Amino acid sequence: MDERKYNMAEEVKVFSTWASPFALRVIWALKLKGVEFDTVHEDLINKSPLLLQYNPIHKKVPVLVHDGKVICESLVILEYIDETWKQNPLLPEDPHQKANARFWAKFGDDKVMQSIGGGVLLKEGKEQEEGFAASMENLKYLEEEIRGKKFFGGETIGLADIALGWLAHYLDIVEEIVGLKLIDQEKFPSLAAWKQEFANAPIIRENWPDRDKLVTKYVVVREANLGKGTPK
Amino acid sequence: MDERKYNMAEEVKVFSTWASPFALRVIWALKLKGVEFDTVHEDLINKSPLLLQYNPIHKKVPVLVHDGKVICESLVILEYIDETWKQNPLLPEDPHQKANARFWAKFGDDKVMQSIGGGVLLKEGKEQEEGFAASMENLKYLEEEIRGKKFFGGETIGLADIALGWLAHYLDIVEEIVGLKLIDQEKFPSLAAWKQEFANAPIIRENWPDRDKLVTKYVVVREANLGKGTPK
Repeated sequence: MDERKYNMAEEVKVFSTWASPFALRVIWALKLKGVEFDTVHEDLINKSPLLLQYNPIHKKVPVLVHDGKVICESLVILEYIDETWKQNPLLPEDPHQKANARFWAKFGDDKVMQSIGGGVLLKEGKEQEEGFAASMENLKYLEEEIRGKKFFGGETIGLADIALGWLAHYLDIVEEIVGLKLIDQEKFPSLAAWKQEFANAPIIRENWPDRDKLVTKYVVVREANLGKGTPK
Repeated sequence: MDERKYNMAEEVKVFSTWASPFALRVIWALKLKGVEFDTVHEDLINKSPLLLQYNPIHKKVPVLVHDGKVICESLVILEYIDETWKQNPLLPEDPHQKANARFWAKFGDDKVMQSIGGGVLLKEGKEQEEGFAASMENLKYLEEEIRGKKFFGGETIGLADIALGWLAHYLDIVEEIVGLKLIDQEKFPSLAAWKQEFANAPIIRENWPDRDKLVTKYVVVREANLGKGTPK
């Protein structure tokens, strides 16, 4: 309709790495909204000057650049995306429901990811046992929250689903590496169902990083963290 | 005007402790907006059944109860307050400015509070030196951000000011306890000016917890953490 609009296309760029579950959130959100964007592939061993310029504090992906505006921190970027492109909302209108979605997204980062990543993947022995116990307790809260619902966002994928979405792909990888089962069908039937539902949803399923490569990466990360790495 | 409004007053309750910088955020936000509320004073040694019922996951203050709806996590509560009571907005309208405010609020919790609380107050020796260096780097970023502005929110107190506001009262206490100066006039002139401006702003200055009591509390917390506590 408005030809100028097509000529003066919006600039939307996502700085990402192939493995980052945080960058994946931003990619999912943009694709769910049908926003076209370019991906800038970063190598964390050799970060680009542009990444360091755009995110000088955290020096991390993801970074979203939208018409010259720079936004960092994946949860902050999700809110920006939802406010900027209104179609297919990630957050409900109601302030209380919105607060709930934000609560679970934050819980996912502060507690679930900490206990599974820091407590299980990167530990062994007694420390890992403690991390496993903490993870199971955190997953129990998610199980209670998702019971009777398709997604944390209700019938459609919302902010909390996107924030917790890494579980649907990366958790199996952690389980395989450490040889422990975290989300099993019997203990967490609703969460297991959500995991499958989310992993296989359109857009989500097309954007998972290669599983074998992720296993290799996280084995290296684990060994380095346990002081067993062989630096090359 | 509307008599029913007065008869069926809103229920607004804040679960708080006398010392919590997180609960203080909620109290400031409600007062800045002129929302009447009741405070439920919690004792963290002996938490009320209601607090445990309302916040079973984190078991912490603050909790906001608004007409039967329960909201936990201080930054999530601030967003809820801003969306529910529109007067004196804490967040700007523009999505990019909003993202900036959220970025600094999150930076305050993830980095500034971690490095000063966990890295300086609760450590000694070499670990404390590292925490001090990290704190100084984090404060440098705040100094750059606040330069030329009255508040992080511009001319008025906004979400980032409220989230970082603990610095304006609790930082002096940390400095006194550990005998180290973090925000000094020469290194961080703009941040020092913000600290004073914020601490003395109406509503803020009337709600600080008692300084001497805070010193006593944090000395105990520090000693317990260093394994020097004498449990009574």
